[in-house]
Amino acid sequence: MILILKNGATDDQIDHVIQKVESMGFQTHLSRGTFRTIIGMIGDESLTTEQQLQSIPGVHQVIPVLPPYKLASREAHPESSVIDVSGVKIGGGNLAMIAGPCSVEDRDRMMRIGESVVKSGANLFRGGAYKPRTSPYAFQGLGEAGLKILREVGDAFGVPVVTEITDPRNVELVAEYSDMLQVGARNMQNFVLLTEVGKSERPVLLKRGMAATIQDLLMSAEYVLSQGNPNVVLCERGIKSFDPSTRNLYDVAAVPVVQGLTHLPIIVDPSHATGRPDLIPPCALAGLAAGADGVHIEVHDCPEEAKSDGAQALLPEQYNEIVEKMAAMAELLGKTISPLPNSTTNNTPPTEALA
Amino acid sequence: MILILKNGATDDQIDHVIQKVESMGFQTHLSRGTFRTIIGMIGDESLTTEQQLQSIPGVHQVIPVLPPYKLASREAHPESSVIDVSGVKIGGGNLAMIAGPCSVEDRDRMMRIGESVVKSGANLFRGGAYKPRTSPYAFQGLGEAGLKILREVGDAFGVPVVTEITDPRNVELVAEYSDMLQVGARNMQNFVLLTEVGKSERPVLLKRGMAATIQDLLMSAEYVLSQGNPNVVLCERGIKSFDPSTRNLYDVAAVPVVQGLTHLPIIVDPSHATGRPDLIPPCALAGLAAGADGVHIEVHDCPEEAKSDGAQALLPEQYNEIVEKMAAMAELLGKTISPLPNSTTNNTPPTEALA
Amino acid sequence: MILILKNGATDDQIDHVIQKVESMGFQTHLSRGTFRTIIGMIGDESLTTEQQLQSIPGVHQVIPVLPPYKLASREAHPESSVIDVSGVKIGGGNLAMIAGPCSVEDRDRMMRIGESVVKSGANLFRGGAYKPRTSPYAFQGLGEAGLKILREVGDAFGVPVVTEITDPRNVELVAEYSDMLQVGARNMQNFVLLTEVGKSERPVLLKRGMAATIQDLLMSAEYVLSQGNPNVVLCERGIKSFDPSTRNLYDVAAVPVVQGLTHLPIIVDPSHATGRPDLIPPCALAGLAAGADGVHIEVHDCPEEAKSDGAQALLPEQYNEIVEKMAAMAELLGKTISPLPNSTTNNTPPTEALA
Amino acid sequence: MILILKNGATDDQIDHVIQKVESMGFQTHLSRGTFRTIIGMIGDESLTTEQQLQSIPGVHQVIPVLPPYKLASREAHPESSVIDVSGVKIGGGNLAMIAGPCSVEDRDRMMRIGESVVKSGANLFRGGAYKPRTSPYAFQGLGEAGLKILREVGDAFGVPVVTEITDPRNVELVAEYSDMLQVGARNMQNFVLLTEVGKSERPVLLKRGMAATIQDLLMSAEYVLSQGNPNVVLCERGIKSFDPSTRNLYDVAAVPVVQGLTHLPIIVDPSHATGRPDLIPPCALAGLAAGADGVHIEVHDCPEEAKSDGAQALLPEQYNEIVEKMAAMAELLGKTISPLPNSTTNNTPPTEALA
Repeated sequence: MILILKNGATDDQIDHVIQKVESMGFQTHLSRGTFRTIIGMIGDESLTTEQQLQSIPGVHQVIPVLPPYKLASREAHPESSVIDVSGVKIGGGNLAMIAGPCSVEDRDRMMRIGESVVKSGANLFRGGAYKPRTSPYAFQGLGEAGLKILREVGDAFGVPVVTEITDPRNVELVAEYSDMLQVGARNMQNFVLLTEVGKSERPVLLKRGMAATIQDLLMSAEYVLSQGNPNVVLCERGIKSFDPSTRNLYDVAAVPVVQGLTHLPIIVDPSHATGRPDLIPPCALAGLAAGADGVHIEVHDCPEEAKSDGAQALLPEQYNEIVEKMAAMAELLGKTISPLPNSTTNNTPPTEALA
Repeated sequence: MILILKNGATDDQIDHVIQKVESMGFQTHLSRGTFRTIIGMIGDESLTTEQQLQSIPGVHQVIPVLPPYKLASREAHPESSVIDVSGVKIGGGNLAMIAGPCSVEDRDRMMRIGESVVKSGANLFRGGAYKPRTSPYAFQGLGEAGLKILREVGDAFGVPVVTEITDPRNVELVAEYSDMLQVGARNMQNFVLLTEVGKSERPVLLKRGMAATIQDLLMSAEYVLSQGNPNVVLCERGIKSFDPSTRNLYDVAAVPVVQGLTHLPIIVDPSHATGRPDLIPPCALAGLAAGADGVHIEVHDCPEEAKSDGAQALLPEQYNEIVEKMAAMAELLGKTISPLPNSTTNNTPPTEALA
Repeated sequence: MILILKNGATDDQIDHVIQKVESMGFQTHLSRGTFRTIIGMIGDESLTTEQQLQSIPGVHQVIPVLPPYKLASREAHPESSVIDVSGVKIGGGNLAMIAGPCSVEDRDRMMRIGESVVKSGANLFRGGAYKPRTSPYAFQGLGEAGLKILREVGDAFGVPVVTEITDPRNVELVAEYSDMLQVGARNMQNFVLLTEVGKSERPVLLKRGMAATIQDLLMSAEYVLSQGNPNVVLCERGIKSFDPSTRNLYDVAAVPVVQGLTHLPIIVDPSHATGRPDLIPPCALAGLAAGADGVHIEVHDCPEEAKSDGAQALLPEQYNEIVEKMAAMAELLGKTISPLPNSTTNNTPPTEALA
Repeated sequence: MILILKNGATDDQIDHVIQKVESMGFQTHLSRGTFRTIIGMIGDESLTTEQQLQSIPGVHQVIPVLPPYKLASREAHPESSVIDVSGVKIGGGNLAMIAGPCSVEDRDRMMRIGESVVKSGANLFRGGAYKPRTSPYAFQGLGEAGLKILREVGDAFGVPVVTEITDPRNVELVAEYSDMLQVGARNMQNFVLLTEVGKSERPVLLKRGMAATIQDLLMSAEYVLSQGNPNVVLCERGIKSFDPSTRNLYDVAAVPVVQGLTHLPIIVDPSHATGRPDLIPPCALAGLAAGADGVHIEVHDCPEEAKSDGAQALLPEQYNEIVEKMAAMAELLGKTISPLPNSTTNNTPPTEALA
């Protein structure tokens, strides 16, 4: 870290800062400028925090020089990680195509949507059994019954499934039925939940919070990694901003920013980022063009009957169309849509399921 | 709700919208303008959601006319609620003065700070035993040992205590030791946690999330209320913005906005809102002047030794000074700093503790 | 417009609202719901404003149903406009490739950079002669001398030039030397300047302000259009947000949002949006993938010597590489990089200039 | 400035950075840490810019240690400035009470409102003759005719007047009729306009832009100061944020932040900050409590007839009430509402005008 002292810091204050910092186990390097005194701290930055240093009288500004996320940082792990979700690879040129309805609803509808999106080229099927809803009066998900339906769809079409986890008490249950655990935007800094999913062996899809800086996102990934679970896929899904045109502000530049800082893959979710079906196709393509390792899109066959978030879902035929365009884009970019685990050719679901 | 149809919505679409809405149990009222067709929906708005209506083909915009928070709304409960925290009243002209360190640390320090802030006029003592920290490597709190120290301080000085709850599995434990449960900003939309604290009998201090609109905050309060716990105090503690001058953006106008919409009290937390000790006093006074029902301030007797957030704490003598000013402001505004439960005169802590 | 009255609006208030609105020349349509009374206004919305209606006692909310930008709206002009900048077409599948340094600097450097970017495929050369700088002590541009150099580069390589206008007194002068007038982000709501460029015959490149909603941007375009100048190209260049990773927040979803609302073309500027050269290539591709009608990129051959904004410029060889990728992307999307006016084949500048 | 070099910066890069920086006229101070090399620059920071330094290969981060606003900084001028507006003092404990309608409208109404607000205690009368309106179709102000009315009101009641300047060509004209020139939020970075008002002798009321950091605001003040006009009063009037509850986000903490950084006074404008009359009184008091040097409030006697912004104005009787409260608050804070220039007692307008 580097400490910039206040203009007019006294010699006593300077001595106290040096003594304090050395007592923490750092070597110091003093530099008196015309206007400001600067103290370089040489040693293990994890021995203290910016805030603690900021509290020492005379300190004006604390400048960290190393990222506080150690396991997640690209400096620690220069090669891009490839996460394997029950046979589907994400990262390192392998694209995740995650699709499905917002909530798990009745079995027949789920089978229908599942079949359709897999046929179109999705390689991960999604659906929420536990829904974090803004209103206590809104549909909260089918719970375990929903997990069973989700698993059934996954098995029928040979596609791994991902679903949201909202309760630290449910991690084992959800992990039993699904291939990947999603931590939603509203829980991105639910550190109790992050710690629990970090103890699971399931890969984790970690969505960026609406007020989260990229560093916040990487710190939350670090929670999971530090518990021993190295399989984290990040997801940009829009942050808060002032323009009501879209539900959130789709931060597509976060994709290359994140890829510069971490070895973990990052996908985009234009459904939640924009909240508008007409914007999903252009924003999905933009995400891929920016380098995303996959695209998450909500699909529903009758949005007006959806139990949640129907307004931001594509119809199955619209999804089919955008996957074709994404496949062409992937080819241009030299990337591959990951094949389903048991398929012999790319993107072709098991024929028995589609018959 | 009011539905504004798309420019050029067809007669078939209009018929379909009407039929769909009536099938939900609403009466409809059709109005064809020069440019737009509008459908008024008459009935119980909780039968549907904006998103579902938005999904119906031909619908351009959905305009709710009633707030979605029913129990929290002032329309439902015109009189301001006064929340009683083990004898200390908050709301309706009674001011909460919450003070204490960010984290519970060693017993002696806690007793010292507790004695000091109570002597200065605090009527609720705070300290975190479970800390939601951005970094998995930072101090995470003393856990149950911290709760015991907190309780000891509360008992010694006759002051109720408030502490943060971060894990739905800990609600009973935390409720046993403390008088009020704090739900922090990062958990404001942790609906699992809100539901659990809603089942508790302890009053809840609900902090506004960094990306939460005021409606989001009220919806989170509604989660607690809808579980049967009517004792919610809201807290404005800063939202995300673009200026790095302060840690967050202190939204002081939220105080009167919230008071217009709900009967629940709202306090302000200039420590977290600004992250700078020099800004706490002016922002505390500004909060009271805007009508806040109390002020939450972090106090530590040696910020550079604080286990967390020392940089945003006042020293005990600074806290004493600002309480004097807040007392004068309260008088000007015709409000009262709530006395401690057993004190015969306002703001005088039990003499045995201070002796 | 639609007026939603306050809960509990009295009959007298309702009568007054109706009378007031009818006196403005509207017909009204009254609808009393269970909870709210709604008044539909039928007539020419330009006769009043939201704010005026909001001021009438009893009115709770005013909902406009038509966009306030009449000339810019796609409803008024369903077909996408193609803007011609001295022979280079922008919009309707024709892509602008705007490149050049932030500021016009010395003639030799400008000729070198101009030759290079035109050779790479740029079809509009940019450079600022009047620089709006945050600091009064920073380089403010070469003024008319800079305009002359810019013109010389344009003439030498047969490429139209665009430069920023900051002073309403300079419109004629700048228009004499350049093919397109840029209104910068900080002047997007400088209505005096907008009015003056609206009187010019030069096409206008209008950049989105850092706090501008998309509606604000379209209203500013309307200023120019309403003065008689129909040739406006919009530009997304990043808005303010809370994450310090990038200089601004690149709102790529604004591209399809804008294209849905207006017939005017919209390009993207990843240089200003991100402020980081490493992010320019992925964000340029993302912009095209989202449907942008062109890309604006700063290019400098020695960023550390640039008089302004060197840190966000690409080197000429980096620009050459990204144009190749953008050309491949354009082909995939079925679009064309507009050829230079006098070139017989696409993207090949006059051979005499390059010899 | 301090330069933090990139992890893995080569010796050649380090040498080049040092040579480059020394060629600019700085001394350097090299410090090699375990992970990062740091170069301290000793000398006059105005010789270069952050951006230029950022462009040097190998540089990771540039950290300025001195504020870039030299004349505006409190380091340069430790004592708070008191600005004199034709006899009304602002700053150093003297409070400005600015009131009046958004736009100058007909003479009789202006005289009526002017008389009323002066009687209530206003010491500066405001009204816009040139209105920067988002829509080209909205009322744009009466121009010079409006200036004349404004002057007439000022003369009638012995109160200085302030009005907005939007066009650099109008500075002399506006300065002839008014006592103070307002630069509005949308023009805060209209550097051409700032330069022109900097050449005027009239005090300037500089409003913070909706996307302006506090440093941006101070840099804009520096433009005016650097032209020779030392009389700048700053104004916080709300910045952009995500919550639609209020028109802008009232950043009350900006008041003490600004006062720590500059000697210039800062007032607050709760009318524009919130856009809601019900929020003006609590936010006005909050601004004073936070230490503001004055309060700007829009007042109109018939908001529904106002030519602009009626919805955010107080009625004269509401203004009278809030001034009483502000006067009590001022007394508590040990400040004085500046008397009118010719009044013998505080806040009493010339009796002939009120008779």
